[in-house]
Amino acid sequence: MFCRTPTAFLNFHSSKAHRVLYAFFRSGTMALSTPVPPASLLEEMVVPSRQLFGPGPSNMADTIADAQHRNLLGHLHPEFIKIMADTRLGLQYVFKTKNSYTFAVSGTGHSGMECALVNLLERGDRFLVVEIGLWGKRAADLAIRMGIDVNIVAAPHGEAIEEYKPQVVFVCHGESSTGVVQPLDGIGEICHQTGALLLVDTVASLGGARFDADALGVDCVYSATQKVLNAPPGLAPISFSDRAIEKIRNRKTRVASFYFDALELGNYWGCDAEIKRYHHTAPISTVYALRTALAIVAKEGIDASIDRHYQNAQLIYKLLEANSLEPFVEKEEWRLPCLTTVKVPAGVDWKEVADDLMAEGVEIAGGLGPTVGKIWRIGTFGLNSDKTKIEQVISLLARAVKKRCNL
Amino acid sequence: MFCRTPTAFLNFHSSKAHRVLYAFFRSGTMALSTPVPPASLLEEMVVPSRQLFGPGPSNMADTIADAQHRNLLGHLHPEFIKIMADTRLGLQYVFKTKNSYTFAVSGTGHSGMECALVNLLERGDRFLVVEIGLWGKRAADLAIRMGIDVNIVAAPHGEAIEEYKPQVVFVCHGESSTGVVQPLDGIGEICHQTGALLLVDTVASLGGARFDADALGVDCVYSATQKVLNAPPGLAPISFSDRAIEKIRNRKTRVASFYFDALELGNYWGCDAEIKRYHHTAPISTVYALRTALAIVAKEGIDASIDRHYQNAQLIYKLLEANSLEPFVEKEEWRLPCLTTVKVPAGVDWKEVADDLMAEGVEIAGGLGPTVGKIWRIGTFGLNSDKTKIEQVISLLARAVKKRCNL
Repeated sequence: MFCRTPTAFLNFHSSKAHRVLYAFFRSGTMALSTPVPPASLLEEMVVPSRQLFGPGPSNMADTIADAQHRNLLGHLHPEFIKIMADTRLGLQYVFKTKNSYTFAVSGTGHSGMECALVNLLERGDRFLVVEIGLWGKRAADLAIRMGIDVNIVAAPHGEAIEEYKPQVVFVCHGESSTGVVQPLDGIGEICHQTGALLLVDTVASLGGARFDADALGVDCVYSATQKVLNAPPGLAPISFSDRAIEKIRNRKTRVASFYFDALELGNYWGCDAEIKRYHHTAPISTVYALRTALAIVAKEGIDASIDRHYQNAQLIYKLLEANSLEPFVEKEEWRLPCLTTVKVPAGVDWKEVADDLMAEGVEIAGGLGPTVGKIWRIGTFGLNSDKTKIEQVISLLARAVKKRCNL
Repeated sequence: MFCRTPTAFLNFHSSKAHRVLYAFFRSGTMALSTPVPPASLLEEMVVPSRQLFGPGPSNMADTIADAQHRNLLGHLHPEFIKIMADTRLGLQYVFKTKNSYTFAVSGTGHSGMECALVNLLERGDRFLVVEIGLWGKRAADLAIRMGIDVNIVAAPHGEAIEEYKPQVVFVCHGESSTGVVQPLDGIGEICHQTGALLLVDTVASLGGARFDADALGVDCVYSATQKVLNAPPGLAPISFSDRAIEKIRNRKTRVASFYFDALELGNYWGCDAEIKRYHHTAPISTVYALRTALAIVAKEGIDASIDRHYQNAQLIYKLLEANSLEPFVEKEEWRLPCLTTVKVPAGVDWKEVADDLMAEGVEIAGGLGPTVGKIWRIGTFGLNSDKTKIEQVISLLARAVKKRCNL
């Protein structure tokens, strides 16, 4: 079709690149195979109903399931860009931050850790990990893979940060392998006095334990969607302070990842004033889910959500005591309100008890790493931080323990 | 509670690590802020209905939307492990491969590229990129970030692979920025003669154009879920040949990523004979979606799905011709059957035409990179490769073009 004056079009097939490739190709057409479809894939997918009281994922809220059922939009459609913008506002709200670079990485919680490290650290930097459980080990391991100097605080050092002179300090706020919530007061201040950036993991704690990114002087914080937020896994909320972004902008070397490049992701999510560049295709349904999850928290209020988790945790401690069971974390202020760890009584096999609950469709978990066999982990995230549900799960636990004692 | 003989429990709070941390903390409790919930987040999420005929995401099949509505399972529950196993079988089926290391990366299509590169390449390696559009540029850029020697084939070299002696050669099978499907016959053979690994991007082509990973000698192939498979974005199907895994196992340096470590991911997805280690929490709903999408392809048959895309592409060419519109790719065997590029006639503004269609709830896209302004891109992926839908979209396009010509 010609419309007014015809002009020359880009002719891709006369381009150099194409001629090159053509030289590679044989004229013959390959015989392609015709595999047989796998039989098990043709059977119905089995998804039994479950009460998820493990360390995550938690039960998905119905409105979030509905959101995931909605038709897809293009990732550059204005309606979807609005959904991303609302999601950013919600993330700033739950992190309690004004950081412009607040968005969600298109991956699970662990991708948040990876995004933080590959952007904040470069060769020549020193990374100080406060290791209080599994997640510090993981962060240290990843930094070692990246060729970073890593120090792990594992012996008493009141002045550890000053001593090691790190560029970045890692602390896990809610340690899901032990059920400890780590008070962060003062750490940001010490970091900033020594010029270090404070990086905090809130995967298991965000929305379920007191946290205030700006007041605590946190420079980078990441989380996940499948714990207190009751959304499916698949996005890692993350936020970078201006100091963190300044360090990233002044890197000597480029970030060795495109997928996790914070400045590219920030541009994609509308965090800067630049024209939006194509980065990747966001996981549309999962963004719908996160936006809906954040709206649920916003409706309840972030502080009300956190208070509810603390109050219901009190109920758990009371019920455990009434059933002669003991929390693993002795000091109450160190207990993570949304994930309670319970000592496995001597002579009881943790797995048999967990299996008894699973037979009733209720999931609780055992320990992880050094706590395997020694504890149960009971997550009461978001909608599962509910009086009736808690009474049910603790009652099932107590009954199963008693049964195993009487064997 | 004591049950039989009490034993000593791990007392986390008397551990060294805990004492260290305690030394950091001030006794005072911080004043935390109480932010106001963002008003726009409290409004309903707006998701207008859309016919998605752009380069992706495509429309989600109803059964896939239903799958995403299902309740979550734990990522280690036996029922979910079965769903992962079925998904792997489905991926082997659509890639046409027997590769044991066939799974899905928990990220969007681009994460497949990143997973491939960080595992297959290490410093000292040479990477040859056959650049025929945007995706080759991206792969080259990522490798440069990683400190790899990169050569881009951009001038005629019949013997390019032998000349450059690369460890890995990248080719994009379905180039979504131009609508070209790249014949791959013989490239695998040349790569293997020179000891190189062949890496292929099938993000835009898998299930919609002829491809056979094993017959073509492909060593690593990745794709995405939101094109022919009609699932939401969020997973990157990937497969590594035994040769690729052997190279990964014999790396001199560790993979500088934990999230994308192919051997860890392979273990997590059940590709090896080792005991399953915890890696990350899979995006449960998106895995349901992918499993369902693969079952749809398996029911139709992979070859029948591909044939349908070729047949419907013929229909598109016929309708374009009837409306005096021209495909951008001249040679018919180089046209990607699931994504047709159409020349924008002289004097017509591509954007105005696309906007006219969008006003009717139908998305088509413009060019990308060097093709901006010169082409429209019409994706007919999976369920959108349908006679009635194609007649509708081409008719809307022709009407909008005519309208703009008469202005």
